[in-house]
This record gives sequence, structure tokens and C-alpha cells, in this order.
Amino acid sequence: MATKPCIPKGTRDFSPEEMAKRNYIFSTIREVFRLYGFQQIETPAMENLSTLMGKYGDEGDKLLFKIQNSGDYFSGLTDEELLSRNAAKLACKFCEKGLRYDLTVPFARYVVMHRDDIAFPFKRFQIQPVWRADRPQKGRYREFYQCDADVVGSDSLLNEVELVQMLDTVFCKFGIRVAIKINNRKILSGIAEIIGEADKITDITVAIDKLDKIGLENVNAELASKGIPQESIAKLQPIILLSGTNQEKLATLKQTLALSETGMKGVEESEFILNTIAGLGIRSEVELDLTLARGLNYYTGAIFEVKALDVQIGSISGGGRYDNLTGIFGLPGVSGVGISFGADRIYDVLNQLDLYPKDASASTQVLFVNFGSAETAYVLPILAKVREAGIRAEIFPDASKMKKQMSYANAKAIPFVAIAGENEMQEGKLTLKNMTTGEQHLVTPDELIATVKL
Amino acid sequence: MATKPCIPKGTRDFSPEEMAKRNYIFSTIREVFRLYGFQQIETPAMENLSTLMGKYGDEGDKLLFKIQNSGDYFSGLTDEELLSRNAAKLACKFCEKGLRYDLTVPFARYVVMHRDDIAFPFKRFQIQPVWRADRPQKGRYREFYQCDADVVGSDSLLNEVELVQMLDTVFCKFGIRVAIKINNRKILSGIAEIIGEADKITDITVAIDKLDKIGLENVNAELASKGIPQESIAKLQPIILLSGTNQEKLATLKQTLALSETGMKGVEESEFILNTIAGLGIRSEVELDLTLARGLNYYTGAIFEVKALDVQIGSISGGGRYDNLTGIFGLPGVSGVGISFGADRIYDVLNQLDLYPKDASASTQVLFVNFGSAETAYVLPILAKVREAGIRAEIFPDASKMKKQMSYANAKAIPFVAIAGENEMQEGKLTLKNMTTGEQHLVTPDELIATVKL
Repeated sequence: MATKPCIPKGTRDFSPEEMAKRNYIFSTIREVFRLYGFQQIETPAMENLSTLMGKYGDEGDKLLFKIQNSGDYFSGLTDEELLSRNAAKLACKFCEKGLRYDLTVPFARYVVMHRDDIAFPFKRFQIQPVWRADRPQKGRYREFYQCDADVVGSDSLLNEVELVQMLDTVFCKFGIRVAIKINNRKILSGIAEIIGEADKITDITVAIDKLDKIGLENVNAELASKGIPQESIAKLQPIILLSGTNQEKLATLKQTLALSETGMKGVEESEFILNTIAGLGIRSEVELDLTLARGLNYYTGAIFEVKALDVQIGSISGGGRYDNLTGIFGLPGVSGVGISFGADRIYDVLNQLDLYPKDASASTQVLFVNFGSAETAYVLPILAKVREAGIRAEIFPDASKMKKQMSYANAKAIPFVAIAGENEMQEGKLTLKNMTTGEQHLVTPDELIATVKL
Repeated sequence: MATKPCIPKGTRDFSPEEMAKRNYIFSTIREVFRLYGFQQIETPAMENLSTLMGKYGDEGDKLLFKIQNSGDYFSGLTDEELLSRNAAKLACKFCEKGLRYDLTVPFARYVVMHRDDIAFPFKRFQIQPVWRADRPQKGRYREFYQCDADVVGSDSLLNEVELVQMLDTVFCKFGIRVAIKINNRKILSGIAEIIGEADKITDITVAIDKLDKIGLENVNAELASKGIPQESIAKLQPIILLSGTNQEKLATLKQTLALSETGMKGVEESEFILNTIAGLGIRSEVELDLTLARGLNYYTGAIFEVKALDVQIGSISGGGRYDNLTGIFGLPGVSGVGISFGADRIYDVLNQLDLYPKDASASTQVLFVNFGSAETAYVLPILAKVREAGIRAEIFPDASKMKKQMSYANAKAIPFVAIAGENEMQEGKLTLKNMTTGEQHLVTPDELIATVKL
């Protein structure tokens, strides 16, 4: 029985210190979501596999954690089927449920199921764990939290504007300097359209993205190697070399994409978003970046991505506009736009830059030392009063050696220790020790409360 | 593809309204846990089946949700094993992981794994969902939250005292009138001991519990039918008829259990807890109740249970002292004591008694009406300023008909609506409508902030 216990690979325990930091991240994000009128929902950890399968590609289907049916999960299976040992096929016989893989598909399912109770446009946020049977590696886990805010049921670009404001507000609150990059799927489609290579969008953006590293000549060579004719590559030159302010980029794009209706629509949308944002006091840099090409198989309009400026790390937030979120569940015509915060990466960035506020831990503020039953009887009513005043306080439960009690206070980083022995009891007071400075004073219970509350 | 989506039976979606109420419950409990020096941890949803199996009895093993191994889960299985169709046995071959069934076993596993990093006594709380493949029925779900606080590594009865204070504080904050019942496993053992029927504790408490309903004669008859001899039943009479104040009950027990060392220890412990609590301003009724017999197979000392006084419902909180929490994982001698809040039942009680605070929703405080692009350009900087002041605010993203925008405000229960048309824009003001009273006033942005903040 007494085997050394462990947890499944790719999963984590969170200690009190880690939880304090994570709670700070989640509550900051939650507060901003609410400031912009988003409302929280939660969905079950388990969804029917029929809801999840086929939504994340073949690779995604394999990465779903499947839950074995209760009872006799063999029922209805022939010997032949069993002996086929077809793991993927039989998984769907053995299992009807799976753990959610992201928050988007459950959200789409939620919208369809509850459409009659929802006041559209529906601004929802959701902060819950998701599970993926990915190969665990540094920074990639099998259980991790997603923090998503989406608006569905509105085509207005004001939604995009507000989401950019929210990205800015969140990272300002964290004190993380970021660049918010925006792009538009329609601009990328327009580019592909004018050079007649609609299926080469990814190749083009990947190549353009390398300009700084490999130079124009090599970018053009790479484009040629992908089968893009020289004539098209020539047309791409102003786009590969696109630079300057957002306004300058937009001006160039208007010329280059003049013949593509879709492309011009993308330019117009980006222009509206960037111009509207400009008047709203955003503190982060917002940059039109054509190499931003995440989620090309589902984003249909604006695309967002946030990069931390002072830490080398991948994107720490992203999002975009998608059409027809709920079509697969039988409710067509619902457009949406959303953003998602990468809590684990934000955690690392805040750690690296040492940006956690000192009071984030919500840990005990004062520990009462335990000298035995008489002293405890004196201390307990004072302790009750201290808590009544809203101070997080505790008494060491056992009358252990002073040294042990003090190291407990140190281990929990408790800033004050209150001591009551014979002298203090006679005077109706306590000795309050500041664990940071080492100073100690004889105080009344009221003075203790006032000092600790400071 | 377009099948009507649904969620697995026994699971639930939580709407924004439900989430607001649940968040109120969890944050109230969390605040009290912290006030008493408890620190939050989280553990993964998935544990190794070797951690979970055998900890909840045979029935519990069946109720574990098991997660199918990724990849080829058939590897190493013979044709014979497969064709045996032994669902329980093969589940352990197909699956290495399961969803956690409660928070206690993962906590024990956590303590053992992280013992070198923990400052004992370890006061931890944990608020996370658990999963059980129970047959769903009214009020019983396959996914539900547990809210647990435990102290491990201290035998001091001060821990019991503080847990009772915490129960009292939480339900006072909720405004739910409760009776906190306490008992002690050692008293029950003592009773069984003096009548020489150590294995009949459950029969005895079940019978005693029926006194009010069926009367003394029938209780005695039931005891006899369970095979308890008349002589023993005679000895039980003072205990069956135990009544009066806690002090009176303790006095009777001291006489009755005088010959049982264990029993007297239980009486002593209960006396300490009740006497200590008496001086600490607890507002709930605390009652020594010998019929309280929950968790007899794991509690070893104090047992707690909380009943709501104004609603007919089972217990809404409970707990107790257990020895050797971590023994099964190879760390013997760690005693613990804890309490657990039943969030789903508390939710129902608060609903039935209409006790939710009006401001619990954290929903939008003011909606700005959208009249089109000129008006929006005027409104957006004001909206940014309003949010800067900490007010939860939004603009309707589309310039829809006034009626649609107002019904959106109503559906979201937004208390104020701000309107800016040509007149307001000329004056640099807005019309602020109070949605409860119907009153509306022309105000400056600063006046708007002041009014909504009230």
C-alpha cells in the first residue's frame, strides 16, 4: 500500500504560494472582464464526445482525454471488434464522454443550448481548466487554465476595439509592457487574391516573417521555392517591405490591395479599429502586423496577439473574429470575437520581472503564540476580536517551543507575532513583534488591530 | 453534424446569474478560511488510479470516473483477457488515471509528496470540483464542488474550537440560522464498550435517533431486535433519554461512561470544545448530539454537522477529526481535523430564504446607448473615463433600435442607462436614466460617475 505517491505527468499541484500568485492573475483578469460588461459562465469538465470530436482536427481528436463508460462498457461489442484492437475506433465504443479541450467549443454548445435565455449580444467570460493529452514538456501541461472573453451575436467592430482596450488594461494592471499586434484575415486573403495564390497564405506570411532575419533576397527565394511565380513575388514586394506607422502601412495596403474587395474590407476594418483606439488613451503599443497569422483556419476578421516586451517568451494573449461559431451545433449566422489570456505564461513573466504585489498572498497577518492553557484562554477572545476587525489571524494550536512557533511564522511569512505571557496578561496587553524589523511593543488589543491593519 | 447538443447527465452549465450566486458563496467561505489562517492549494483533476482505488470502499471504486490511456491502450492484453469482458478488471488495464472523487485523498497525497516543503501544522483549504459516477437524481450531481478546510499535524483541540467558530462565522455571514451539532467518536465507542457491543454503534445511534418519532418503548424494541441484550439496553437508558443543556448531558455521560477510558476521553474532549467555545461569542446554537454518527469509519474524535433551522434540508456542512490521514501513502502518525461546506445545498438554502445580497451579481452598472458612429465617437472617451473610475460599464455594440437596447439592459438587470444624442453632445453631457425608478437627468460625465457609484 505504502507506495510513494505521484501525480500524472503533465499535471501540477499548486502550493499556497503558487495559488496566491495564480489568484492574483485570475482576479485581475476577471475584474477587467467585468469592467467591460462580460459575465461569467462555467460549463462541465466533461462533455459528450459527440460535442468534442471533429472540432479540433484529427490530431485534436487524438489529444482528447476520454472517460470510460460506467458499468459494462463492453455491451454490444462483437468478439471480432474487440480483437481488432482498433484503439481509436473502440475508444468511441468504450467512452461517451471526454474532458473539455478548450473553452470555445463548450461555449458554442452553451450558446446553442441556452439561446432562448441569452440576451444577445452575449458577452461572456470563462476561466476554467482544459485538458489535452499532449506530450508534456517545459511550459506545456496536460491540465491548464484558459481565460477567455468573447462577444457573440454582434458584427460591430466596437467589440474589437473594446477587446484591444481590455488587453491593454489587463497588462497595464500587471505592469507588463506589451506590444499588441493586430492583423486581419481579410487582408491576408486580399494579398493571396491579388497574386492569384489563395492557398499560399501561410507560406507567404511565414516567409515575410523572416525578413529581419534572412533579408529580402532570401525571402523572395523562399517564396519562389514554394511555387509562387516571379510575377506574383514582384507584386508582393510592397507588402514584404511594409513598414512605418500604422497609417503608412494602411496607405500602402490601400494601393496594393485596391483590386481586392475582400482585402479592402480588411484594410477598412483595421483602419476603424486603429483609429478608434487612438482616441482612447491606450498605453500599450498597438501595431498592424501582417505576419501575424494565428488561427487562420478559424479566424475570419481581426486577429490579435500580445507579446511581452521585456521577456523572451511566446505570445501571452491572443484572439480574433470568427464567423459561424455555432453552425456545427445547428445555429447558423452567429458571429463572434474573443480574446484569451495565457495564465501560465503570464505567471512566468510576472515571476521573471518580479512584478507580483507584496500583498497578493492573502496570508495570515498575525500569529498568536501559544504558551499553554491559561495564556490561550486569555488570547482566544482577543483573537476573535482581531478577526472581527477583518484581520487574518491564527493561534499556534499547540504549546510548542517558542522556536518552533517562530519558524512557523517565518515559513508562512506572517508579518506580526503577538505574545502574551504573565506580564502581558496582568496588564491586559500583548507584546506585538514586527517580524520584518524585529521591533516589539507592548500594546492593547485595539492598538494591535490598528498596527496590523496599517 | 447539426445534432441538438446536450451535456452529460448529472452535470450542469452555470449561467451568469447562477455564477454570481456561486461566486458569492465561494468568496464568503474563502474569506473566512483566510481569516483563520488557512491557505489555498489546488490539485489536478486527474489522479493516478493507484492513488484513488481502495480509498472509498468497493462501491467508491465503481463510482470513480476512469480516463482511458492515450495511444494503444490494448498493449499487453491477451485475446483471452479481452474476451473475458471483465469490465472492472480491464478498466485498470485500459485506464491509469481517474478524476478525483473527493478532496481528502488528493490532500493526503499532497501532504505526503510535499512534506518537506510544508510548515506543520498545515492549515489548507481547497475549493474544487469532484466527480462521482453516481446515479444522478434531484440534488445529486456527477460533478460538484467541495469546499474543505483541514488542519493536519496537530492534535490540539484548539483546532476543533476554531473550526466550530468558522462554521458559525460562515453561516452568520450568509444570514442562515443554523444549529451546529457536535459529537465524539470516542463517546460512541465508550457507549458500545460499557454495554459490551463494540460492533453495534451504528445500530444504537440509528435507534436513538428515532426517539422523537417512535418513542422510548419502540426504540428499546428496535435495539432488542438488533440483538442487543436486555441488560445492555437497560444500561443505555440514560443515554437514550439524554437531554437538557450540554452541561447536563456531559454530567450524565460522565456517570454513565465512568468505566470506559475511551468514553471519558471523548467526554473530556467535548467538554473542552464546548466550554472554550462558550467564551468566544458564537452566535449559532451549538449542541452535543449523540445521534450524530456520520463518517464513523474514518472519524476518530470530534464529529461536526450543521443543520439549517429555517429550511428542511439535510446537513449543509460537516466534518471531524481523523487519525492517520496519510498512512496509506507511507507517512504514518499525521492526525487531522477538518470541515467541508456543501455548496449546492447552501445555494438552495440561500435561494429559498432569498438571502442573496442585491449587489452580488458584479454585473454591468451602466449601459451606454448606441445611436451610430458620431454619437459613439462622443461616448467612447467618456466610457473609458467611467471604467477608469472602476465602474462596470458597456456600450451596446450595434446601433440597434432603442427598444432592443433597452431590453438588453433589462435582461442584464443593468441599473443605469446613459444616452447621448445631438442635444447632449452639444452640451457636453449625457442623459442618465435610472432603470429602477424611471427617473432621468441631464448630467456631466463626472456627475454620471458620482451617481452610479452611490
